[in-house]
Amino acid sequence: MSKSVCLLSGGMDSAVSLAIAKSEGSQVYPLTFRYGQKNSLELDCAKDLVRRFGIRDHKIFEIDLRQIGCSALTDDFDVPVDKSLEEITGGKEIPVTYVPARNTIFLSVALGYAEVMGADNIFLGVNHLDSSGYPDCRPEYIKRFQALCDVATKKTVEGEPIKIRAPLLYMTKTDIIRRGMELDVPFELTWSCYESKEKACGRCDSCILRLAGFEEAGLKDPILYEK
Amino acid sequence: MSKSVCLLSGGMDSAVSLAIAKSEGSQVYPLTFRYGQKNSLELDCAKDLVRRFGIRDHKIFEIDLRQIGCSALTDDFDVPVDKSLEEITGGKEIPVTYVPARNTIFLSVALGYAEVMGADNIFLGVNHLDSSGYPDCRPEYIKRFQALCDVATKKTVEGEPIKIRAPLLYMTKTDIIRRGMELDVPFELTWSCYESKEKACGRCDSCILRLAGFEEAGLKDPILYEK
Repeated sequence: MSKSVCLLSGGMDSAVSLAIAKSEGSQVYPLTFRYGQKNSLELDCAKDLVRRFGIRDHKIFEIDLRQIGCSALTDDFDVPVDKSLEEITGGKEIPVTYVPARNTIFLSVALGYAEVMGADNIFLGVNHLDSSGYPDCRPEYIKRFQALCDVATKKTVEGEPIKIRAPLLYMTKTDIIRRGMELDVPFELTWSCYESKEKACGRCDSCILRLAGFEEAGLKDPILYEK
Repeated sequence: MSKSVCLLSGGMDSAVSLAIAKSEGSQVYPLTFRYGQKNSLELDCAKDLVRRFGIRDHKIFEIDLRQIGCSALTDDFDVPVDKSLEEITGGKEIPVTYVPARNTIFLSVALGYAEVMGADNIFLGVNHLDSSGYPDCRPEYIKRFQALCDVATKKTVEGEPIKIRAPLLYMTKTDIIRRGMELDVPFELTWSCYESKEKACGRCDSCILRLAGFEEAGLKDPILYEK
């Protein structure tokens, strides 16, 4: 039986990615980061998902990325997360919610954890097509992280390299929702909104992508929205 | 003036690597990790080195790698660090002091920090020739981390990629000591021993490499040894 460390944020994509790992018969080890995110609801969702999936080992790794700062998702200064980067900084391609090197840091920790657990795979829910334009969600990025893994750890000396699996990379949000439905992913326990309130805002990039995905799939999003 | 984030452990190699960055006229930003290492002397040395070099900004980043465990350098179970992996686990190439994915994790955080600081380079003191056989100290590893950086961050969209600089990669310990002497590196403020005591043990891998380096350079190591 293969073993897979699965990055699980509490969002929709990582939940589907974990469900795919499970559906392949892999023993899954969810890994969630408490990185100083303002959005604590996400973490609660990750815990609820793990319980619902009937998984025992849930590693919640503490790493306070506010130590290096500079993102609307972690910093204490109040940047409105529903504004685009263009509005706020005059920049063009990368949203203000980009956390510097976040996926690289998370994957590195996952690599160490996978090595310690003797895992074969690291699953993550990055998604290129409907992503918000983060540089570390692109296919070339994943390819190069794999190339790094191939030489980075003890396992590469003793056996097979750990495989980076990003099953949602080329899927649309609609595809992801449909695949999740097939796999009985409890979408009501996932959280996508950048805000941490009782109801999702329905206005931030993340909410807009999610709502459009459900609409296109012809399904109703089970979580509550403000509007 | 270029800016360089410099990984600084408090050991000899990273001190020389930082001195090289300074000698190139770069503005340096030392970055030290409190990662749950048993050896706290190393951290004190890093602080003393920064003071001696007359640098103001010293980022000490907290990330407790004991959360993923499994190294004689961090774990609480008492593995003798002067024993080779072969003696302890029957393995062959990688010493018991190897911390899973440590350099990958440290470089990832450095990448995020460099991006936030607008730095051009990340300097690190890895050294292939006289290293202890860690997989993440090899030239191919550095090359692949650079390839990752080239696509990983916001800076790659807006300007030049951040450069990974490992100036000691192909140097022997003796070369490193000579270069450090030329650059007035205060070796008396560096610590290499895996143990954290008043005097270095003189027996662990790290002490043995250091002592041999000084001997070959025809110099006296200014720190105190037990034997």
